[in-house]
Amino acid sequence: MELIKNLQWRYAVKKYKDELVSEDKIDQIIEAVNLSASSCGIQPYRLIVVTNPEIRQKLAEGSFNSQIQASSHLLVFAAFNNITSEYIADYVAMMEKQRNLEIGMLNDYRDTLISHFSAQTPEQNAIWSSKQAYIGLGTALIAAAELQVDATPMEGFDPQLFNDILGLTGKNLHASVIISLGYRDTANDYLASMPKVRLPIDQFSTMLK
Amino acid sequence: MELIKNLQWRYAVKKYKDELVSEDKIDQIIEAVNLSASSCGIQPYRLIVVTNPEIRQKLAEGSFNSQIQASSHLLVFAAFNNITSEYIADYVAMMEKQRNLEIGMLNDYRDTLISHFSAQTPEQNAIWSSKQAYIGLGTALIAAAELQVDATPMEGFDPQLFNDILGLTGKNLHASVIISLGYRDTANDYLASMPKVRLPIDQFSTMLK
Repeated sequence: MELIKNLQWRYAVKKYKDELVSEDKIDQIIEAVNLSASSCGIQPYRLIVVTNPEIRQKLAEGSFNSQIQASSHLLVFAAFNNITSEYIADYVAMMEKQRNLEIGMLNDYRDTLISHFSAQTPEQNAIWSSKQAYIGLGTALIAAAELQVDATPMEGFDPQLFNDILGLTGKNLHASVIISLGYRDTANDYLASMPKVRLPIDQFSTMLK
Repeated sequence: MELIKNLQWRYAVKKYKDELVSEDKIDQIIEAVNLSASSCGIQPYRLIVVTNPEIRQKLAEGSFNSQIQASSHLLVFAAFNNITSEYIADYVAMMEKQRNLEIGMLNDYRDTLISHFSAQTPEQNAIWSSKQAYIGLGTALIAAAELQVDATPMEGFDPQLFNDILGLTGKNLHASVIISLGYRDTANDYLASMPKVRLPIDQFSTMLK
């Protein structure tokens, strides 16, 4: 299975070579993330791709993860702070359009979503959105691996700093999780030669037959 | 790119045919999930695969998602309720073993993790664990699609009922998200022929060069 081979190949790179990932590969990774599943299908997060060196230097401040700056590209998964009724209405209208449905055909679906999300606190909706972003994170890692592009998923960053520098708060977004992309520096990355550590399958999963 | 093709093929199936997925394919999906990335590498969730019809009937009670019962297999992603120091110590000891490191070599790493997670509330650790489970969810959907197995990711279930019936709470686990697996009943599934809805790429992602 290609996926298993690709997952075995990848690891969280600590040290990158000074080599850029092509725009074509970045575009494919973004497209794959955009195709990820999300609950209710409403994609409650956005992807910000940062290459600008000055911005990345600022984002890396105070983090122990040098890969924020020292890699080819940085992907920021920015989840929604809240799920607004306006967003749901706009998204469902887009659904009707993309599916060639008559306007109003999905009104019941729209209203069910609006009543569900407006009954939750903004904090609950932000956590929910962040979980959806983690589905996208997993897709990005798999997409990169298929293209033989290395990656490092990271939670070790200053979310407030990211929100400020990227102007996320005003856009109803917050930095949820990030990935650096590039090519592993095998000679200088102590993790490159380490075996992957995973639970034995019978500890990880249980069958109820 | 295989991944993009597979993501375009999949959708959240509403109606399954009465056809079982082979054990070999289920094993590959489980293996792929076990190989998913997790933060700090500590896999803070478990996968429960349910085929037993009586158990599935009970799990489906009160849910609008008939796929909980009417599909080949049900995968339950059960996230940790808390990240205990004991778990971290055991996991890091396993890391040392799988990497052929001397016992104690990763003591600093272990202690850093213990101080991080014990400074968080159990609720924060449970949310964090659940996010990691969503990475695994995304992997399972991609694994199934590569094997041409259909799937439905679902949040619409009664977590307390799942926790009780599967005896999760006593194992420091809670049902976080679920997936049914099987084969789409194209003729009777209204979603089977619908175009996939996604944001235009330039609305989903932004480049900061």
